[in-house]
Amino acid sequence: MPGTMEPINIGLMGLGTVGGGVAAALSNNAEEIQRKTGRTVCLRRALVRDAGKTREPAPPAGVLTTNPEDILADPEIHVVVEVMGGDSPAGEYLERALAGGKHVVTANKEVMARRGASLLALAQSQSVNLLFEASAGGGIPIVGCLMSQLLANDIRSIRSIINGTTNYILTRMARSQTPFAEALSEAQSQGYAEADPTNDVEGIDAAYKLSVLGSLAFHQSIPHEAIHTEGISRLGPEDFRYAAELGYAIKSLAIAAAQPDGTVQARVHPALVPEDHLLAKVDGVYNAVEVTGDLCGQIILHGQGAGRDATTSAVMGDILNVVRFIDSAGPPPLLPVPNGRGHQVGNSIRPIDELSSAYYLRLTCADQAGVLAQIARLLGDGNISIATVIQKDTDPGSGTAQLVITTYPSREADVQTALAAVAKLGVVVSVDNLIRIEQ
Amino acid sequence: MPGTMEPINIGLMGLGTVGGGVAAALSNNAEEIQRKTGRTVCLRRALVRDAGKTREPAPPAGVLTTNPEDILADPEIHVVVEVMGGDSPAGEYLERALAGGKHVVTANKEVMARRGASLLALAQSQSVNLLFEASAGGGIPIVGCLMSQLLANDIRSIRSIINGTTNYILTRMARSQTPFAEALSEAQSQGYAEADPTNDVEGIDAAYKLSVLGSLAFHQSIPHEAIHTEGISRLGPEDFRYAAELGYAIKSLAIAAAQPDGTVQARVHPALVPEDHLLAKVDGVYNAVEVTGDLCGQIILHGQGAGRDATTSAVMGDILNVVRFIDSAGPPPLLPVPNGRGHQVGNSIRPIDELSSAYYLRLTCADQAGVLAQIARLLGDGNISIATVIQKDTDPGSGTAQLVITTYPSREADVQTALAAVAKLGVVVSVDNLIRIEQ
Repeated sequence: MPGTMEPINIGLMGLGTVGGGVAAALSNNAEEIQRKTGRTVCLRRALVRDAGKTREPAPPAGVLTTNPEDILADPEIHVVVEVMGGDSPAGEYLERALAGGKHVVTANKEVMARRGASLLALAQSQSVNLLFEASAGGGIPIVGCLMSQLLANDIRSIRSIINGTTNYILTRMARSQTPFAEALSEAQSQGYAEADPTNDVEGIDAAYKLSVLGSLAFHQSIPHEAIHTEGISRLGPEDFRYAAELGYAIKSLAIAAAQPDGTVQARVHPALVPEDHLLAKVDGVYNAVEVTGDLCGQIILHGQGAGRDATTSAVMGDILNVVRFIDSAGPPPLLPVPNGRGHQVGNSIRPIDELSSAYYLRLTCADQAGVLAQIARLLGDGNISIATVIQKDTDPGSGTAQLVITTYPSREADVQTALAAVAKLGVVVSVDNLIRIEQ
Repeated sequence: MPGTMEPINIGLMGLGTVGGGVAAALSNNAEEIQRKTGRTVCLRRALVRDAGKTREPAPPAGVLTTNPEDILADPEIHVVVEVMGGDSPAGEYLERALAGGKHVVTANKEVMARRGASLLALAQSQSVNLLFEASAGGGIPIVGCLMSQLLANDIRSIRSIINGTTNYILTRMARSQTPFAEALSEAQSQGYAEADPTNDVEGIDAAYKLSVLGSLAFHQSIPHEAIHTEGISRLGPEDFRYAAELGYAIKSLAIAAAQPDGTVQARVHPALVPEDHLLAKVDGVYNAVEVTGDLCGQIILHGQGAGRDATTSAVMGDILNVVRFIDSAGPPPLLPVPNGRGHQVGNSIRPIDELSSAYYLRLTCADQAGVLAQIARLLGDGNISIATVIQKDTDPGSGTAQLVITTYPSREADVQTALAAVAKLGVVVSVDNLIRIEQ
């Protein structure tokens, strides 16, 4: 470690949107950083793919490199800040940085979801910090809250809107009855969705983030592959219309909840949310995380989940905290509490089949007498109680009608089984959607 | 400091509602705490007024004491947890605890508002921690967020609902057109307001909390006496009715905002808030804090601002963090960044006269032609532009009418001067209310 008068040197991996924000903050706020940490913090190296690219402002001479060794093998670099994204090679770089005794700050949700447990163990064994506030929730300070301020709580559940792209699309669909494909291409033209939107609209990005948050909240590994994940592409404008009539908004939620048997249920999917709930009011690219703990009760954090400045806020906060604590002896103070409950990784995730939830079902049926009776019988046989039925959009041409059914809380497996039987009824043209209802 | 195998001993000062919650959490969650901190944490002493009082559950023999020396002079007590409330003697106890090299956790907003700067300096000089998450926002983790996760931000403003009693009363008044006195006595009978409600309804409690939050956000002392403070007792049911017609809710806000000249404007008063803003949707005893920073943008934290469990969440979080860091050598890692900008205490608060705000004005006037012209002329002469006028509640008996005027942003001093002149008009019966409008 450097002497207390020497500068702390940063090796920045990635100089894209967020990396550019971090580099600018390190340079523009140098005096503030010195005041807040008591140390001078220098950007010593920045790893880029193309050192010849024109950058505005141009980094000082000698800072850019295309060789990761210039950061990983430099003993004068004390903190590695990784904002490249993607599992590989970023994950290997971080392993090497930690193994080499460097502190690490990362914004990488995929690396933290896939390798968080082993990286944290490595950091612990090397007595260095590994901070990752920006890996979930962007500028919303949820990671630190789970590790620090809310640490005394037995966390019961997390319910969150943690993908801004998806929320932007859903907000558009709800407000203007825009079909999914159109709302997506609008999001792409606004720069809110990537050319290949799969990670966002299929819930993969949210599952990485939920893995990070759930692992902190429940002190056990929540592997992202074990999270039941559904995207939003099946939602139609009519779902938003019917949901509104029933008093609900539709949001893509990432939920992790402790179960009485010690397992955790973790899932990402569209959900009906009561329209007076604060989560229903999270609009556009905003994110929100609701945490319920035994002591704190329900806390909601709302803010910008992505974007250059918000992510820079989180990364810079981590850098400042690493620097403030860099002279502390003893164990690395900022690491989260690990795997306390001794669960086997992956064994502790409850399958979606065992979910108990209320459901919204949308079907296209023959517009004739007795249809509802046939459907209701199959649902009843499957232990599913109907809460409301709305018949809609009768189409005299095809002789069909839309049927919207909401249920009382039922077991997911029962609902799926009954719905498969319903789909086989001669009077049922199609089962168009199943959306879980959150209260 | 104790050896790494020895227990950490807590001296608890105060065993009322919150103290009882902390004692119960220390006892019931002993294993969790051990797992989360790596240390055994023991409640060694609890200071009470009456050791003979029946308590459920009964504390172990030898824990209760009525003598503060049993905590302050006991070298085996490592952490003092103060939940007595009030400035004195709690403040003196905390000074002695810190001077004696003990770490301190406090929930005391009044002590932190009045003596925070000197206590923090003392903690710094003694290389011990002084944590106070519970002193503002109850279970909402805002104190730690300002000290840690949001540290890289240049905070522009805080706007908050941080008094649950007031918000409960305002929610009742808005929902059922209940008069203030009735809503207050209802809050008292529900246990949400004290027999002497002055501190809550006059904004004093909120000013203490804003002093704590503002000092952290702006890295300078925001003395609570310098905060412009107005209570809610002047609000009438008609104000809620007119505000709703104009598209606003009425909330008591505690606001601190950095000004371009480096000063801070700090104020607690009722305000009109656009009804679609999240702060307008904070209901009942809930609290919320909106923080705007240069990087993070607008973040809102919403949760329970008071109550046994929520406050215990914050106090226990602080205790766990102190214990986790108790073996760290070097400077006390958890203290906030102090007084960085070198402002003189108290000099840096901008007077309310210099506020620029839009206003809602309610007047009772003679119900006759030409009244509005006379009022509008005086406002115009004072550089105040009228945005809307509503004439309401004409009373043929008295020949009066209510006039509700909203203005474009104007200087507070100009508005007060013009309003004094308006009050002297022969056609004006009374100036009934002035409420600032927040956007």
